[in-house]
Amino acid sequence: MEDKEEDVREGANKFPERQPIGTAAQSQDEGGRDYTEPPPAPLFEPGELTSWSFYRAGVAEFMATFLFLYITVLTVMGVLSAPTKCQSVGIQGIAWAFGGMIFALVYCTAGISGGHINPAVTFGLFLARKLSLTRALFYMVMQCLGAICGAGVVKGFMGDRRYEVLGGGANSVNHGYTKGDGLGAEIIGTFVLVYTVFSATDAKRSARDSHVPILAPLPIGFAVFLVHLATIPITGTGINPARSLGAAIIFNKKSAWNDHWIFWVGPFIGAALAALYHQVVIRAIPFKNK
Amino acid sequence: MEDKEEDVREGANKFPERQPIGTAAQSQDEGGRDYTEPPPAPLFEPGELTSWSFYRAGVAEFMATFLFLYITVLTVMGVLSAPTKCQSVGIQGIAWAFGGMIFALVYCTAGISGGHINPAVTFGLFLARKLSLTRALFYMVMQCLGAICGAGVVKGFMGDRRYEVLGGGANSVNHGYTKGDGLGAEIIGTFVLVYTVFSATDAKRSARDSHVPILAPLPIGFAVFLVHLATIPITGTGINPARSLGAAIIFNKKSAWNDHWIFWVGPFIGAALAALYHQVVIRAIPFKNK
Amino acid sequence: MEDKEEDVREGANKFPERQPIGTAAQSQDEGGRDYTEPPPAPLFEPGELTSWSFYRAGVAEFMATFLFLYITVLTVMGVLSAPTKCQSVGIQGIAWAFGGMIFALVYCTAGISGGHINPAVTFGLFLARKLSLTRALFYMVMQCLGAICGAGVVKGFMGDRRYEVLGGGANSVNHGYTKGDGLGAEIIGTFVLVYTVFSATDAKRSARDSHVPILAPLPIGFAVFLVHLATIPITGTGINPARSLGAAIIFNKKSAWNDHWIFWVGPFIGAALAALYHQVVIRAIPFKNK
Amino acid sequence: MEDKEEDVREGANKFPERQPIGTAAQSQDEGGRDYTEPPPAPLFEPGELTSWSFYRAGVAEFMATFLFLYITVLTVMGVLSAPTKCQSVGIQGIAWAFGGMIFALVYCTAGISGGHINPAVTFGLFLARKLSLTRALFYMVMQCLGAICGAGVVKGFMGDRRYEVLGGGANSVNHGYTKGDGLGAEIIGTFVLVYTVFSATDAKRSARDSHVPILAPLPIGFAVFLVHLATIPITGTGINPARSLGAAIIFNKKSAWNDHWIFWVGPFIGAALAALYHQVVIRAIPFKNK
Repeated sequence: MEDKEEDVREGANKFPERQPIGTAAQSQDEGGRDYTEPPPAPLFEPGELTSWSFYRAGVAEFMATFLFLYITVLTVMGVLSAPTKCQSVGIQGIAWAFGGMIFALVYCTAGISGGHINPAVTFGLFLARKLSLTRALFYMVMQCLGAICGAGVVKGFMGDRRYEVLGGGANSVNHGYTKGDGLGAEIIGTFVLVYTVFSATDAKRSARDSHVPILAPLPIGFAVFLVHLATIPITGTGINPARSLGAAIIFNKKSAWNDHWIFWVGPFIGAALAALYHQVVIRAIPFKNK
Repeated sequence: MEDKEEDVREGANKFPERQPIGTAAQSQDEGGRDYTEPPPAPLFEPGELTSWSFYRAGVAEFMATFLFLYITVLTVMGVLSAPTKCQSVGIQGIAWAFGGMIFALVYCTAGISGGHINPAVTFGLFLARKLSLTRALFYMVMQCLGAICGAGVVKGFMGDRRYEVLGGGANSVNHGYTKGDGLGAEIIGTFVLVYTVFSATDAKRSARDSHVPILAPLPIGFAVFLVHLATIPITGTGINPARSLGAAIIFNKKSAWNDHWIFWVGPFIGAALAALYHQVVIRAIPFKNK
Repeated sequence: MEDKEEDVREGANKFPERQPIGTAAQSQDEGGRDYTEPPPAPLFEPGELTSWSFYRAGVAEFMATFLFLYITVLTVMGVLSAPTKCQSVGIQGIAWAFGGMIFALVYCTAGISGGHINPAVTFGLFLARKLSLTRALFYMVMQCLGAICGAGVVKGFMGDRRYEVLGGGANSVNHGYTKGDGLGAEIIGTFVLVYTVFSATDAKRSARDSHVPILAPLPIGFAVFLVHLATIPITGTGINPARSLGAAIIFNKKSAWNDHWIFWVGPFIGAALAALYHQVVIRAIPFKNK
Repeated sequence: MEDKEEDVREGANKFPERQPIGTAAQSQDEGGRDYTEPPPAPLFEPGELTSWSFYRAGVAEFMATFLFLYITVLTVMGVLSAPTKCQSVGIQGIAWAFGGMIFALVYCTAGISGGHINPAVTFGLFLARKLSLTRALFYMVMQCLGAICGAGVVKGFMGDRRYEVLGGGANSVNHGYTKGDGLGAEIIGTFVLVYTVFSATDAKRSARDSHVPILAPLPIGFAVFLVHLATIPITGTGINPARSLGAAIIFNKKSAWNDHWIFWVGPFIGAALAALYHQVVIRAIPFKNK
């Protein structure tokens, strides 16, 4: 806030702002700024550890990931246990469950913890220095714990035998695809999600386009929905290491653990590429700081 | 409004507000407030009983619950009476009917009655002292009457025999699940809904995040949709005692009444837990009042 | 605008405004007004007939209804001509086509003509004196012409024989339902739609709840989607006399004409009831004017 | 901006503005303006070629079209390779993939490049002089390159043989329809999309209706979804020459190339008609400039 006026108008703004959608490019970065980039978060922020809001954010991430796994894995179980897929909400219903829950939960927890609900999102935002390392690690632990509990409750409802027969919602690379296909699908899928998150939280865009902050949870949820539409046949779609870990731990069969690394390495690479693309290519942040 | 400035800035706001979505935690509660928490509603508010807006709100709750049951139970009947589910809108269509109606009806009635359309929502908001006991009881009665009429009209359209054969949209615990599973599913499902309602109506968040009040009816409707995706196979999904009561009274078979208590006890426990979670854990309201 | 201050604060506002969603009732009408009700439109407004915007509005209604019938009837044809419904977008896809087009077209034409695209909506708004009789009749004629052209283009694409075999998207009461059921379904379905339109255009609510005018096209589109989910098995869902007339004229078989009156009488009764409910019960407008 | 006051109030504004949705027509153009029409973009804007934002916009169009083809063609492959359509997300899921990706990507790239992701949209906006010829051609080249890469990655995941058997997501006119039907379907389909884009970016409407700029990406995405619901049975739905070209080049069979001209000529005609309709009929722009 205090540096709002630090950026003097160095050159004439030759290409005036036109309408944001459908029309033209943003005016150059060299022009007068009407927004402030928040300073990068420190790696360690000791004051955080004594603040209630830090622990509350962790509780919110736990609860959100718990509800996320509960609803989504229960939906998967319901579809797989139906006599035919037509008598269930179908594969498309599974995609809606994942995407819709992210929409609702980002809406609910954005103001408390930032609404990550996904270690890959936390990792991407950490790389962009939007939160401290302490906070990032704390979030990831809470997300994984919440995911384990969510999948556990579903197992309780379904009974051990049925849960195992139906695969427990665990991710693995399906027949007909190589491990490389699965890894690639996870990388690009997470890129789509984390790029949407970066677009939704861009300080520059939020200041200019009224629709950016207001709609934000909706395209983030849709990104998750869309990636599920495309990659459920390949890996069941992870793009969220906590979701994959929670289901794997509760399912706990060799088939789930064999491919498990893909669902950590893929999303983390995808998130890193999205952070790189947004911060370096789109915003050119490294080239602007003196 | 008058107490907007009562809360003096007791400490330095060490962790400045960053972007709301995807990024960081809210600043601490101890910092300068930019919102006002409305005072708790009294248990009895005699003045209400002589105001037209009180009765109008009841009429609006009646009409909304009537339309909710009419559209949703008719959709259920249409799906169940089709030769195959593929020739109907499918189970996913049923979930859309429930969630979509809540979206549209919350949008339409929010300004008149608050848009509860559900005794569990009314109960949760009453626990948080957002409305008086008189008003809460009046709403619940009107919701139940509306639900009975809505299901009754559907029975009129379908004819008695067909309505009975198709189960009348009544809730019960399905084969393969215990009563405990059903109760648990109702508790967590209602928690998802009522937690979303609390998040959408949080005075603190509304003041800070522009998207919170504007999108509000959409995530509330999605929460209902998502819980249906997950728990239709278990109980047919209640999470709304008026909806369960209306269908049970019009269907009026032993199978619907046997489990009926689950669809009152479960939603009320879930709503109470959501109120507890939001008011105590997230907002820490009991610890802030002197 | 000029009468903004005409309404003096007659009484203390005993029940202060709380949050709009999930919480409490609107404060009484007697309190200080922060909005202005537009004056009722005259029956005949001769000046309109010489203004370009009047004819432009008619062109916009024609074009919107043309596109509405084109997309929706083509979707119906695609579903019915598939070997099995599973190889098409399904009945649910038909419901999305109708609701989604209304969402997109209301969004596009709201600023030009008000975005009616439906004689029943025009009729309901005329009863509430939101537009002149001249304009209402002009809109209805343009809507019907647009609908006929839209269905005609679909017939051109499908070929005469296939169009006839597939029923041409025309509305009629299905086997297993009486004409009374069909009429009732049309009445309540149109009530849902027109009540949503009234809620979205309420001057009082728009002034108080930021989400009302911003989301408006979305719940209106959803209302159409939801009514289709529920009543496609009964009548194929009309709730729009222009849509029913266009399909009936291009299909032009006795089966479509026999029940055709239902799709004019039903929607007009439903729209009138919605206007009555909103203006008299909810807004109490007749009792407020001296 | 500088010409905000150029338009003097020439006549009395006889028909005052009422509510935008559901109600009445816009006040006449002759009345006092509260918006500014941006000046037409020059054909060649040499300064653009030396600005970073120009190339960044091209990169954003490339990336968006890459992700668009990747997700959508992968979804198509998943549906076609399932044993029955019921065991996939279905044809409706394909429509959601196309429409949903346009929603998410317009949201993400609107502030960078305008969010075209489609040469037909670029062409329509160029005709309305919203961007320079240089920029339009650059966008189209980047969109086509992105589309080729996106389809190529899907081929890599699926394997050459399976990709060919499943048709590679390429567009062609299906059995039972003539080439004329296909061309007509592409023309009207693109009209729906580009008309929605024009409505969403109308300077006059944005200034008056708060919902226009805020919702914008949503109806644009829905328009794509809806056209897919209707015309997948006819052509598989192009309405985007880059999408058709990318799939055709990677599939590279005679069946895809034979009809390929339809997927360029149709969308370009549709976009031109939409530009004509919006600029001439709705806005009457040619008649207003002296």
